[in-house]
Amino acid sequence: MMDCRTSFGRCSHTVSALWGLLRRNVAPVWEHLPNDVRQSIIDKGLDFYVIDAYAVAAEAGMGGRINTIMQTCFFALSGVLPVDEAIDAIKTAIRETYSRKGEEMVQRNFAVVDNSLARLHKVDVPKSTAEGFDAPPVVSPEAPEFVREVTAAMMAGHGDRLPVSALPDDGTWPAGTSAWEIRDLSREIPAWDPELCIQCGNCALVCPHSVIRARFYHEDRLDDAPEEFRSAKLRGRGYPEIRYTLQIHPDHCTGCTLCVEACPARSLEEPGKRAINMTSKGPNLEMERNNLAFFETLPEADRGRVDFSTIRGVQHLTPLFEFPGACAGCGETPYLKLVSQLFGDRTVVANATGCSSIYGGNLPTTPWTKNKEGRGPAWSNSLFEDNAEFGIGFRLSADTHRTEAENLLRQLADRIGADLVEETLNASQDRETEIRAQRGRVERIMEHLSGMDDPKARRLESVAEHLVRRSVWIVGGDGWAYDIGYGGLDHALSLGRDVNVLVLDTEVYSNTGGQVSKATPLAAVAKFAAGGKPLPKKDLALQAIAYGNVYVARVSMGANPQQTLLAFREAERYRGPSLILAYSHCIAHGIDMKKGMLQQKLAVKSGHWPLMRYNPVLRDEGVNPFMLDSPRPSIWLKEYAHREARYRILESTNPSDAERLMKAAQEDVLVRWGVYEELATRGDAAFHFARAARPGRHETESTS
Amino acid sequence: MMDCRTSFGRCSHTVSALWGLLRRNVAPVWEHLPNDVRQSIIDKGLDFYVIDAYAVAAEAGMGGRINTIMQTCFFALSGVLPVDEAIDAIKTAIRETYSRKGEEMVQRNFAVVDNSLARLHKVDVPKSTAEGFDAPPVVSPEAPEFVREVTAAMMAGHGDRLPVSALPDDGTWPAGTSAWEIRDLSREIPAWDPELCIQCGNCALVCPHSVIRARFYHEDRLDDAPEEFRSAKLRGRGYPEIRYTLQIHPDHCTGCTLCVEACPARSLEEPGKRAINMTSKGPNLEMERNNLAFFETLPEADRGRVDFSTIRGVQHLTPLFEFPGACAGCGETPYLKLVSQLFGDRTVVANATGCSSIYGGNLPTTPWTKNKEGRGPAWSNSLFEDNAEFGIGFRLSADTHRTEAENLLRQLADRIGADLVEETLNASQDRETEIRAQRGRVERIMEHLSGMDDPKARRLESVAEHLVRRSVWIVGGDGWAYDIGYGGLDHALSLGRDVNVLVLDTEVYSNTGGQVSKATPLAAVAKFAAGGKPLPKKDLALQAIAYGNVYVARVSMGANPQQTLLAFREAERYRGPSLILAYSHCIAHGIDMKKGMLQQKLAVKSGHWPLMRYNPVLRDEGVNPFMLDSPRPSIWLKEYAHREARYRILESTNPSDAERLMKAAQEDVLVRWGVYEELATRGDAAFHFARAARPGRHETESTS
Repeated sequence: MMDCRTSFGRCSHTVSALWGLLRRNVAPVWEHLPNDVRQSIIDKGLDFYVIDAYAVAAEAGMGGRINTIMQTCFFALSGVLPVDEAIDAIKTAIRETYSRKGEEMVQRNFAVVDNSLARLHKVDVPKSTAEGFDAPPVVSPEAPEFVREVTAAMMAGHGDRLPVSALPDDGTWPAGTSAWEIRDLSREIPAWDPELCIQCGNCALVCPHSVIRARFYHEDRLDDAPEEFRSAKLRGRGYPEIRYTLQIHPDHCTGCTLCVEACPARSLEEPGKRAINMTSKGPNLEMERNNLAFFETLPEADRGRVDFSTIRGVQHLTPLFEFPGACAGCGETPYLKLVSQLFGDRTVVANATGCSSIYGGNLPTTPWTKNKEGRGPAWSNSLFEDNAEFGIGFRLSADTHRTEAENLLRQLADRIGADLVEETLNASQDRETEIRAQRGRVERIMEHLSGMDDPKARRLESVAEHLVRRSVWIVGGDGWAYDIGYGGLDHALSLGRDVNVLVLDTEVYSNTGGQVSKATPLAAVAKFAAGGKPLPKKDLALQAIAYGNVYVARVSMGANPQQTLLAFREAERYRGPSLILAYSHCIAHGIDMKKGMLQQKLAVKSGHWPLMRYNPVLRDEGVNPFMLDSPRPSIWLKEYAHREARYRILESTNPSDAERLMKAAQEDVLVRWGVYEELATRGDAAFHFARAARPGRHETESTS
Repeated sequence: MMDCRTSFGRCSHTVSALWGLLRRNVAPVWEHLPNDVRQSIIDKGLDFYVIDAYAVAAEAGMGGRINTIMQTCFFALSGVLPVDEAIDAIKTAIRETYSRKGEEMVQRNFAVVDNSLARLHKVDVPKSTAEGFDAPPVVSPEAPEFVREVTAAMMAGHGDRLPVSALPDDGTWPAGTSAWEIRDLSREIPAWDPELCIQCGNCALVCPHSVIRARFYHEDRLDDAPEEFRSAKLRGRGYPEIRYTLQIHPDHCTGCTLCVEACPARSLEEPGKRAINMTSKGPNLEMERNNLAFFETLPEADRGRVDFSTIRGVQHLTPLFEFPGACAGCGETPYLKLVSQLFGDRTVVANATGCSSIYGGNLPTTPWTKNKEGRGPAWSNSLFEDNAEFGIGFRLSADTHRTEAENLLRQLADRIGADLVEETLNASQDRETEIRAQRGRVERIMEHLSGMDDPKARRLESVAEHLVRRSVWIVGGDGWAYDIGYGGLDHALSLGRDVNVLVLDTEVYSNTGGQVSKATPLAAVAKFAAGGKPLPKKDLALQAIAYGNVYVARVSMGANPQQTLLAFREAERYRGPSLILAYSHCIAHGIDMKKGMLQQKLAVKSGHWPLMRYNPVLRDEGVNPFMLDSPRPSIWLKEYAHREARYRILESTNPSDAERLMKAAQEDVLVRWGVYEELATRGDAAFHFARAARPGRHETESTS
């Protein structure tokens, strides 16, 4: 389908209907175009062609890849070259591009070219728009005023028509706006099978776009449910009347299929069937929209009752990061979603330039959102070269505000009540229940303050929120953390402050097109390393561990989601600097993205990405702080690497270098593994020695 | 002595004579002033006073510290305040400044103030300069023309009178110019005792200003020696006719006394006497000048016959870094001198901003010099934030030139001679003899080229020097390496290129006045850490070790000069990146600088500065590459720290914090020691495991 998308791409109903028409080779496409599009075609005197490119691709066994098809149509119609000459050139290019992937791939693409021309139809354009309909609005009429008036204008490409006065005067943009931007990227959406489902939460965890949500509720609520609304008994003893539902946001799903791949439940009767399966979107869209509307009337889980320590529990925490403009199947966003679920209502995020800054603040919309109480992450983006420093600033200002609040609290203790003040000042704020209790105290303090006619009360009101512990997250990719921003990152880690650094490690500068970074592994091909990177990946974990007082973890959600969850929670709870290196599969790896989590698993199995945690709390207790969380490598590195084009491509272009580099990479993996294993298995002697010998203890003993 | 120094400070003869006069309370100072100074005093109608401030200080037991004396004289004469009021204010300030060092120190300073006034003499100024003499030239008439015409003008403060055309048009300044800048800083110089001396070379090694030189020569050469020239039989069997002399450069000595402290030979008859001892400069200056003039006619050692592996041998290598404008007793410069001795004739230095960039290129003079063949280090200074990258550029350009030379050599092989070309291309260049052999080959190639009428010959001539291996050194302080330049340093280390990074670690921003850096130790006071640094020193060694292919060493010349020498040679020989962290005592530590090398020793003994080497060559051989070169801590940290004002000052200003921080620092030392000991004592298992398991070996085994 050509061109049409841009002008009404956000009207998914129309598009889905069009696809249906094309698939059945029904020609009256015109009937389904809104008036402004029709008028534009008529006014410009355009020739209007359509092709069901996805059908052509599917028939050729090429899945959703329509680039060759659309290119063929372009040359057939544009007159840039004589058609025969253009087709010859395309086929020559196909042979050059795909020959190293085998003759079958070449022939498949040739067939696609021929079919494309056969399936390209010209649409008769009438003289007038008569009997048409108006395009639906860019965003739903239910959207907030700002979204309707400002965001929608920018989404429609009319931002230049907005007066300056329409824009936020302090640069603060409203959160949660990606919910109003319907991208309708997929022709398939997942369907949930309540019978097979074991309610593990894996699908919700890995979904890069937060379109899979889980809720539990009393069965009475089902009385008002739509007929096709699905539910199951909540697994777990002692809740006979509680139902569980997994619900899809059908308009926001990108069809990446990670959820299906992550599902551990399989049908015994139907091979290949799992508890969540991709289905055609068209026939199911309205049903899922209705189900979603009902689902959203169900109560959100009480955070005080959710088990934060398991993936099964965490699925019930509402993400405060949803529907980002990231690639389908993105390996980064599930980590950010997890942060937003666990700590989102008290989080501030400093985001380095990179993919995460683009999908994180893709003006005019943002996926960072807020909960029903209006709380959510505060997010801002700084430069590649100073983001860690930027985040340290967040910490320093939060600490300054908290100190100010504590001082004022002490000064006003008589009038607020000494007990409440003491409780507030000394509150433990590690667990969710403790955080919620502190929120309650702050609310009570605010009530006291409202009745006071004292400038100090006004000042305390302005900073009292900081009495609830802020969670500062410094986020970026490997280009930032390993390279451009490393000097600052190192400095931020050195300061001993309570910040959490999350590195979304795709091992390459993904957002700028795949340039090599210090995180790129030995033997992988990247821009500026076309012959394969000759040097090993930098070990940022060990560099941070050198500080001794930095919490460090290497995680891979696809390999061990439970370890990922544990690391995020430990990092956040630790009151010093933390660094989490999160393996993130990426389109830049040249993989089938729906297999992204499998690649994460193989990265760990091969030893390329050992899972580990270094917890300074243990060190301070005289115990070896280094914990290796994955077993010895059980597959060769190439068994993992060969599944990725970034490695595989060198086997075609330079087989001898590919072999040499892969050998070196394998050796590097094993040497690093050896080092990690030594660190993990050393006795606690070093730490005991230090504690036994430290002067404090020494002096105490000698005076007793 | 007031004022007089500036106008004829470089005429040491006059100054020494003046000191003598003052010491004997002889008044006719006027007789010893050159005409231009006399005329200036007359023209301006100045009142002219003199005081022998050093005598006053010495009598009060204050060594060379004359600041209080000169301040007292200033207030006595300037009329800024009524004299009595000024003296009261000075005494109040003395009490405030010195009371924490004890009442004795206060009283000593009070006495000094009173004595200063008594010993301040007014000189009668005549009406004319009659019967005077002209000031000697700023530099010796033997200096090269550029130094006489340009450098001297700038030294005299007349740089603004120079035409632009007098300055180097490509920014390249001649080397070795500090030799012409006589600073005459000291009233004492060392005297060598040939009888006691064991010829170990320690004094020459530690001398920060390269004023102590050793030569060996045939005894026949002594026939022309001045009467007072000293020599001894060269120690070592089989050289009965060879004599050894240790010679001082008396005009450049700063009197720091490090040489005396470093001398291990002690007289049994005269307690306190060593093989090198400080003596009064005045009576010995002419003699030592004559001796030096003769000494310089003696042959320099043949580098091919010097034992590079011992300090005893290295003393015979001429330093190509001499007479820097560094502080007396500087802890940094001996390391640079060592580099210049070992590799200077093929070294390029990229120098970060900091002390080393100031004394390294203190326009108009530089201490970097060249040997008799005209070869010496090429040196340049870049910014704080990019010096490692700057140095990598040196490496890349040298490698590019070498590759170009190699290619041209192959193309011209028929005409140059295949054997010579092959030898040149395949030459090992690790040892000094090999380097010298390669130089010989390049000379022969140049001879061949000179006869060829071919543009390729001209191109090869321009790059042939690069066939001799270049030694690239990237030099800076801890402010650069740990902080501002760390991002670039890490990147430079990551690239696998053959560069040698030397960090002169004074643990503080010395040059800018003592600000805290990430190298500053826990509990030490520095600017921006007035309450003592609350966080441990960053472990840059471990961070670099994380790469696995970076040679890393921690050295301390005062603790173990032999290990220092070994590390420098291993680092340079290693064909990948090397990082040497060199403990450098500093005036910023608040120590008696002549005890600098002792503090280096105590830093190691206390475990604060463990000596270690990490050699990737061993790792590649399947052996534990981490070597701990110093024994377990044998003294408490405070026994080292208490000798330094940077730690001690906190004991006065905040004793409880001082105690708390010192405890934490002690614990940190022991924890780090434990980690290092674990690294050093782990089996080679990790490395063997990797090699045994690596696919290359695996495949070989399975096919055999």
